[in-house]
Parts: sequence; C-alpha cells; structure tokens
Amino acid sequence: MLKSLRSDILHEAESKDLKVIIIAAEGPVFSSGHDLKELTDVRGRDYHTEVFQTCSEVMMLIRNHPVPVIAMVNGLATAAGCQLVASCDIAVASDKSSFATPGVNIGLFCSTPAVALGRAVPRKVALEMLFTGEPISAQEAVRHGLISKVVPEGQLEEETMRIAKKIASLSRSVVALGKATFYKQLSQDLRAAYFLTSQAMVDNLALRDGQEGIEAFIQKRKPVWSH
Amino acid sequence: MLKSLRSDILHEAESKDLKVIIIAAEGPVFSSGHDLKELTDVRGRDYHTEVFQTCSEVMMLIRNHPVPVIAMVNGLATAAGCQLVASCDIAVASDKSSFATPGVNIGLFCSTPAVALGRAVPRKVALEMLFTGEPISAQEAVRHGLISKVVPEGQLEEETMRIAKKIASLSRSVVALGKATFYKQLSQDLRAAYFLTSQAMVDNLALRDGQEGIEAFIQKRKPVWSH
Amino acid sequence: MLKSLRSDILHEAESKDLKVIIIAAEGPVFSSGHDLKELTDVRGRDYHTEVFQTCSEVMMLIRNHPVPVIAMVNGLATAAGCQLVASCDIAVASDKSSFATPGVNIGLFCSTPAVALGRAVPRKVALEMLFTGEPISAQEAVRHGLISKVVPEGQLEEETMRIAKKIASLSRSVVALGKATFYKQLSQDLRAAYFLTSQAMVDNLALRDGQEGIEAFIQKRKPVWSH
Repeated sequence: MLKSLRSDILHEAESKDLKVIIIAAEGPVFSSGHDLKELTDVRGRDYHTEVFQTCSEVMMLIRNHPVPVIAMVNGLATAAGCQLVASCDIAVASDKSSFATPGVNIGLFCSTPAVALGRAVPRKVALEMLFTGEPISAQEAVRHGLISKVVPEGQLEEETMRIAKKIASLSRSVVALGKATFYKQLSQDLRAAYFLTSQAMVDNLALRDGQEGIEAFIQKRKPVWSH
Repeated sequence: MLKSLRSDILHEAESKDLKVIIIAAEGPVFSSGHDLKELTDVRGRDYHTEVFQTCSEVMMLIRNHPVPVIAMVNGLATAAGCQLVASCDIAVASDKSSFATPGVNIGLFCSTPAVALGRAVPRKVALEMLFTGEPISAQEAVRHGLISKVVPEGQLEEETMRIAKKIASLSRSVVALGKATFYKQLSQDLRAAYFLTSQAMVDNLALRDGQEGIEAFIQKRKPVWSH
Repeated sequence: MLKSLRSDILHEAESKDLKVIIIAAEGPVFSSGHDLKELTDVRGRDYHTEVFQTCSEVMMLIRNHPVPVIAMVNGLATAAGCQLVASCDIAVASDKSSFATPGVNIGLFCSTPAVALGRAVPRKVALEMLFTGEPISAQEAVRHGLISKVVPEGQLEEETMRIAKKIASLSRSVVALGKATFYKQLSQDLRAAYFLTSQAMVDNLALRDGQEGIEAFIQKRKPVWSH
C-alpha cells in the first residue's frame, strides 16, 4: 500500500500538466494505518525498519512534492492514516470524519504519526490524543489545525474540487517555488527566514509567470501562465 | 513548595506501579506562583537564582518524567502556576478556572512562565497575556491549547480520573517510550524526527508489551501488560 | 511607504516617554502590501531585492523594538499588509476586517508574508491561505492566532486604546526586558530557554522597577515606576 502510494505520488511529478494531487479513499475508513500483521515478531526487526522507513519516506514526499497535496477525508483516519492527513498541505473533511492515534491501546505508541500530528496541532491536543488513543471529531480537528476545513458529507467532493481547481488555475512554477520556500523557512530563525524568502520573492519575479502575472494585473486582463 | 513538589514528582518515579500523576490543589486558587516575599532585595541575587533554577527544574522534571502528568485545575492559575499548567502533558480544568501571567503588573515580567506558555499557545495569545497581565477564561484556554479540556466544576474530578484511569490501563513501558520520543522529535527537522521515531517504533515493537499488544489484538483478546 | 514606516517606528524608540506603538490606517484597507508597479521587470533585480530587504527589515524592527507594537485593523489586510499584522506583538481588529495572502493569483507567491504568517497560525491554515489566495474573516483570524482580539467596528479604537493604556501604565524597562527575552527563548530548546529566562528573572528583580513593584505590592500601594 505504501509503495503504491509512493508510486502514485511520484507519477508524472515533474509534468507541467500536474497541478495538484488529491488523496481520497473509498468506504467508511479513510485509512487506519499499518497492517498489524506486518508488525508481528515473526517478520523481524529489519522488516519492521523497512516498513517505517517507507512510511516516513511517503510522508516526506508529500512535503517535498512540487504541487500541493490535498487530503479529502470522509470517515475515520487513525494512526498512520491520521499522519497522512496531517502530512498533506491541505485537508478537507466531512463532518462525519474523526481522527485518532490509538496505537497505545495495542502497545504500539504512535511515534511516527506524532511527528506530523505534533507539527499540526497544539502540544496538549497531540498528547491527549497520543496518551488516551481517543478520537477527536472533524470539528475539533479543524479548530486545532489538523485539517483545513470541515463540510457536510454531501459537499465534500464539491468543496475539495473547488480548492483543487483554484490551485490548478494558478502558475505551477510559482506554486512550486512558494511551497518549497514555505517549508524551508519555517524552521529557520527570523533573520535567516527573511533572507531566504526575500531571495525567493526576487527569483519569483524573475520567473516568466512572475512578470506575466504582474503585467496582466496592471493591464487588467487574465494572466496566461507558461507554468 | 517547589522542593516539596519536586520530591513528590520524583517519588517512586521508577516504580512499575506508578502509571500517571495528577497535580491538583485545594481551595479557589490552583497556584499563584512564587511567594513574592522570597523575591525582595534583602534575599539577594544568589537566592533569587536558586528560586528560579528550582522552578525551572520542576517544570523540566514533568516533561522528562516517564509517566504522563495531568494538571487538574479548579480556579485561578497565575504566573508560575500558569506555567505549571502549561508544563503538564495534559490539563483538565473546570469552567470557573482562569489563567494569567500578571507579573508585569508588579514589575516582574513572567519570563520563565513564558517559556511554557509560548510553547503551548499561539504567539499573539501569549504576548497579550504577558504584556497586559489580564486573565483568559478556561474556554479561551482550551481554544488556544493551554489546556486539553474544560468541564463543569462538578465533573472535573470524574473527567480527570477517567483520563487517568485510561492511561493507567495501558502499558507503562510503551507510554514512557512514547512520551520521551514525542518531546525529543518535536524540535528536530522532519528528516531527523522521522529517523528517530522510525527507530522508536521498531524498538517499541521489540518490547514485550509491543508484541503482547499486537498478538492480543490479532487474537481478539485483552492484552496482559508486563509494563 | 516602507521607509516612512521604518522611520516612524524608530522615532524616539529609546525615549522613556514612548511606552507602546499603535499601527493603524485610514480608509477601508489596512494595507494591501507592495505597490506592484515597483515590482515590474523594468525596475530590475537589484531594486526588487532592496524592496524586499527593506520590508523584512521593518518586520524585524517591530520584533526588536523595546516597546510592544499593536496593529489596529479595520478592513482588509493583504499580502505584506497581512504580514505586518502577523508581525506585530498584539493585533486588534474590527469584525469587518479580513486577511489574505493573494499573491499567488498574480503569480507572486507571498513568500515573505509567509514567514510571519507561518509563525502565527497553524501550518494548514497558512498553506490554504497561501495556495488559494482566499481571505479569512476576523473571526477565523482570532481563532487561529493571527490576531489577538476581534471587536465590533464601533469599539475598535476604545479596545485598542484600553490595551495600549494598560501597557503604558507599566514599567517600560520591565516590558522591554520581557519582550526581548520572550522572542529570544522561543526558538531555544527547553533547557537553554529556562537558563536564559531564569537569568532574565534575576536581572528583572535587580532593576529598580523590579524591586519597586514588589515593595509596592507588599506595602499595598501603587508602584511608582522610574522606567
């Protein structure tokens, strides 16, 4: 599953025609994370290591991908499934969705999910989820920043597609530069972050789409992107 | 008081029978922080230094403790008392509780409380509290992540005990590994954090309780922890 | 505009009479950021670099300034205008205000605004604003920590002045020490942060206003600050 997800995420990643990725699921569960049968003793330490390295790699691929990745969640997202939601750039969920890191119940603390969760929500929210394994609702998830938006189930696809189409109407090269710069500056000190992003603004202006956008705005016409 | 708190927190910290700690108070004030009579000029710089070092040590003890520490708050938590709440892993408060860092009113900026506060709530929330000294309600505190949950006063003990009993029903060794790993990865960059936590997952699986939990789940029975 | 803002912020910065700064605007727009005519190709790369360096410098001046800086927002704050709000220590906004980073629409990703925005709100909130360019309301802004408080338009000045007067009634030297220490410790690891702030508390106590405040409190009288 992780390898298939990795392969799908990498599919035509560098194509100019790819503008945005939506990760969705069928059925009442978005994702419940790892298959526990892969984590029994008999599989051995090396196999376990490979499983978690592949999982971490998929999560980092999302961040390092040139286009925005949206999670469209309709149902339960637990453990590495909750981590997947937290790792996406944007997440839209139906009001019947819920989110949990229940590993502690079966003696396997959700330490890898906690990397993404702990960077998305306040510390006390993350710790209560991790220590009790209890789920939070979509309403709580949006309030604490785990997801971007919660909508009624009937509007989930419409709202997700609206956001995706908006992003797809923008310049791919501008979005890619912006995404990469955002994550890079986030952990830097303020001075370093402003130095990096000031350069990124100047580089952005030097892109063909940077000048096209500003010219179109001044000329009061729609921009024509070359991506 | 700080030394007594330190001694209580360290009491049987390594005992397998200790699963969770609750910090509570009697009376209408949870804690109003330092005794100002200890901070007058006559006590001298060395004494002041010792006071704040002991305080910081207690706060770090909570984070470094193997079991989760829960603050059960019913009333006012100010200055180092607010810091204590912010420093716990989980905090449950009654709806009549409030939280403030009012040191600035008496010419002593709450700089040590700001360490815990600034890591629990958004920057602007922390700065308004620190610059004005004005209290926030329990509702505001939960919205901004300073506390985990707010309940009516009559349900405070019940809800706190429910969470504590849930944690006490889990494997101590798994929870301890998870807690230590959570705080360690939180300040790392993403790649380092995933490397660390992937190792922690594999180590967790190698714990006796790691395998017991997964076996019990697959066999559809309750796990029997050895802690 | 940026140079005028810089000059105003620096004006009598070291004067004991300056206790707090309010940044406000006239008309329906708080600030819509850079003048796009300054960012066209014809101006050239060096000029663009200077624009963004000056902008970054103004934002850092706010943080490094000895007194608290409050944004009073009544209307639209976009791009570098949104960055300005996010960069202030405190921000009070009317309920008709809104906030956006719409640069992506014109092919210029709001990478410098994202430095301040990404440190004020949860990551997913920042990314949805940056990737879609769509505005958030004042209610959403306060919920996510971008602003400190939202009030009806008719109360905006009153509430902002109430906070400013409260700050102006405090010791300038204590507030300045507290502000500088807050930002310094925020990016440190916990042990370093507590070491730094414990020293700051001791230094604060050694200030004339530190002892005056505590003595006044014990003697149940109003403190008389020397700033």
